[in-house]
Amino acid sequence: MKTLYCNADVLVYRNGEYSVLKNAYVGVDGTRFCYVGEEKPKEDYDAEKDMRGKLLTPAFYNCHAHSPMVLLRGVGSDLPLDKWLFEKVFPVEDRLTPECVRVGSDLSILEMIAGGTVSYSDMYFFPEQTANAAIDAGMKANVSRPVQAFEGAEEQAETRLREALELYDRYHKAANGRILVDFSVHAEYTCNEDVTRRCAELCNERGGNMHIHLSETVKEHEECKQKYSKTPARWFYDLGAFDSRAFAAHCVALEDEDIAILKEKGVSIVHNPTSNMKLGSGFARIPYMLEQGLNVCLGTDGAASNNNLNMFEEMHIAALIHNGYLQDASVIPAQTALKIATRNGALAQGRGDCGFIEPGYRADFIAIDLDKPHLTPCLDVPALLVYAASASDVCLTVCDGKTLYENGTFFTVDKEKILYDTARILHILYD
Amino acid sequence: MKTLYCNADVLVYRNGEYSVLKNAYVGVDGTRFCYVGEEKPKEDYDAEKDMRGKLLTPAFYNCHAHSPMVLLRGVGSDLPLDKWLFEKVFPVEDRLTPECVRVGSDLSILEMIAGGTVSYSDMYFFPEQTANAAIDAGMKANVSRPVQAFEGAEEQAETRLREALELYDRYHKAANGRILVDFSVHAEYTCNEDVTRRCAELCNERGGNMHIHLSETVKEHEECKQKYSKTPARWFYDLGAFDSRAFAAHCVALEDEDIAILKEKGVSIVHNPTSNMKLGSGFARIPYMLEQGLNVCLGTDGAASNNNLNMFEEMHIAALIHNGYLQDASVIPAQTALKIATRNGALAQGRGDCGFIEPGYRADFIAIDLDKPHLTPCLDVPALLVYAASASDVCLTVCDGKTLYENGTFFTVDKEKILYDTARILHILYD
Repeated sequence: MKTLYCNADVLVYRNGEYSVLKNAYVGVDGTRFCYVGEEKPKEDYDAEKDMRGKLLTPAFYNCHAHSPMVLLRGVGSDLPLDKWLFEKVFPVEDRLTPECVRVGSDLSILEMIAGGTVSYSDMYFFPEQTANAAIDAGMKANVSRPVQAFEGAEEQAETRLREALELYDRYHKAANGRILVDFSVHAEYTCNEDVTRRCAELCNERGGNMHIHLSETVKEHEECKQKYSKTPARWFYDLGAFDSRAFAAHCVALEDEDIAILKEKGVSIVHNPTSNMKLGSGFARIPYMLEQGLNVCLGTDGAASNNNLNMFEEMHIAALIHNGYLQDASVIPAQTALKIATRNGALAQGRGDCGFIEPGYRADFIAIDLDKPHLTPCLDVPALLVYAASASDVCLTVCDGKTLYENGTFFTVDKEKILYDTARILHILYD
Repeated sequence: MKTLYCNADVLVYRNGEYSVLKNAYVGVDGTRFCYVGEEKPKEDYDAEKDMRGKLLTPAFYNCHAHSPMVLLRGVGSDLPLDKWLFEKVFPVEDRLTPECVRVGSDLSILEMIAGGTVSYSDMYFFPEQTANAAIDAGMKANVSRPVQAFEGAEEQAETRLREALELYDRYHKAANGRILVDFSVHAEYTCNEDVTRRCAELCNERGGNMHIHLSETVKEHEECKQKYSKTPARWFYDLGAFDSRAFAAHCVALEDEDIAILKEKGVSIVHNPTSNMKLGSGFARIPYMLEQGLNVCLGTDGAASNNNLNMFEEMHIAALIHNGYLQDASVIPAQTALKIATRNGALAQGRGDCGFIEPGYRADFIAIDLDKPHLTPCLDVPALLVYAASASDVCLTVCDGKTLYENGTFFTVDKEKILYDTARILHILYD
């Protein structure tokens, strides 16, 4: 199936910056872009779609989520990370069943698709449920079974390692590569050295991608130094966790030497600005990391500490807060914010053929309806997308060439059934 | 005309906190609420409106805007305040005509109404155009003609003072009190002592409300201290600018003594978090000011430094960033964020009978459509509004009992004509 999207403004990345092709044409052949240009292509297409007044941009890659936690949206608001996690979140999570996780995954997918996200890196219980939900919805997901090892729960850690491997062998590269399986050590403060080393070994043997929480708070960072006489980044490094591709969420409390380690190993940094603000964790040194040439991407974290999965909001907040913190309006320009929300995320997920609207790349894109008062005038497209647009301005979401959403309609998932199932599950969790 | 809104969840403020009446009834008689309760009232109404699945909350009061600057949305992105203002904004503003300001006002109103804002405090050129636009749209506005006095432009300053007074005498309390006229000294760095004193005297004679920019940046604050050996707050105080009601925008660089002055004089603080982040100005000490008992409210500033007039976003960012800055998740809880975006704003505008959904108050409210994936589950209504909801979730906007907007339809303004006029004006400004 070849489809030609006609008369759209198209955001392309050329010569190191985003620019707009006006009244342009985007051809999609199956799962990939086959044409992008201002001239109408001469070859035949099976279908033409008029996109007048619409802006086509790359879709979002959300690189750190606990997607089924949408079921915990609003739980324990305005509490610091440790209280929020141990006193409010964990008791609800103890009641989660595989079915809960499937419904939570489905619910999160509605929100993500409608807001222009086509791919997400997840870390949660029963990840096969999340993988199945993403497969059914036509989305991309990097799923993982996070490994934890608490004292006295050695057997559970063994189970987690086995599950992680089974997940990899069953789902990695499923659904034409839309599903990737990552390995995951939850965090330094929730795992011991032995289990971390073994998880890293499994990951390295398989050539996998390692997804961790890293130095999310100063407290976690300092306690690690007291315990091991090294920072969490050095601890993971020494245990081999960065010996294959890896990406680290949060990174709020990193020191210069940590950043040098991550750069040496090519570890991607997942910035989660909303979660870091909301939980009072602080400001990751994102401008410095960008300056050092690290691959920085964006994540929403779970909806219990955000409280949504809205990548427009995440991109917006990432572009704003560092300017305020460093008292410099030029710190993260709109051009950079756009790239970290899209292409850099695709790279962190191991999806090198995603994130740009260019021939040969996977056809992941969204359309923005520009005929809105708050998007008028459209003088500067990157600024408009980063500072003025909202998730609700998305009128079309396409993943691997397939339309998942258009003008309020979901084509691959049943919204009414999912909301109905959610209401049922909520009784299990909260009654 | 008496209208009964039925079966809604209603956010009320009682005993010092927000809570929700479930499946409740809200009666509106003309411009005011006449009933709020969970029992259906016995008296007759002219109309009943079913609001099942909707949440009724107070509307927003945007307390610092330059609304026609929507025409400059996206101009000079990612530049610091002084460069942005002098090199990018002022050259475009030099070309503004009264008609441009009217069209810009109309365009801003579309965005505000659709996003749940019913009232705004404005400071811009040709404010009579903004007043007329607000009157025609059924909105509330505090308009002002800002006074500036640059060296060598003494005559212009005289004109500004005369215009300010004429505006007051012509528009103050117009349209059943929906329009209020404030006096405005633009800022310490754009006015001299003589003109500031005279503007303050006019304001005090009329019993007016003074709208100023105050200590927006450290640079401005320190330069004032060098020039006058006092802070901007002390400078305004000494010139009588706080002797009647007043409100001060930004307040990023305030010192303890300044905050004590503002408290003594009952000056309201307008927090503009997005603009302060975007322009690299920094973090106003909002948590400290709240602790000191000052009336803190919210503003978007103009769309050229935001880049929208979205009060949901402003409330969200205000609730987040101080947690991050002070590394404390409890600094501005959702309850507080809601109040500063609504009731505190009404108070700053001199609208003491606005901002709560209670009998006797002016009937300003919005409805949120809860049947959305990103608003599911609704476990904690204040948290949902502050951290998860978006401007586009507004399905009904009512001001003084009159429906301005419902489900995408504007009832008092012609969206298509405004967008058409905007396109025409843009040629004047940018071609």
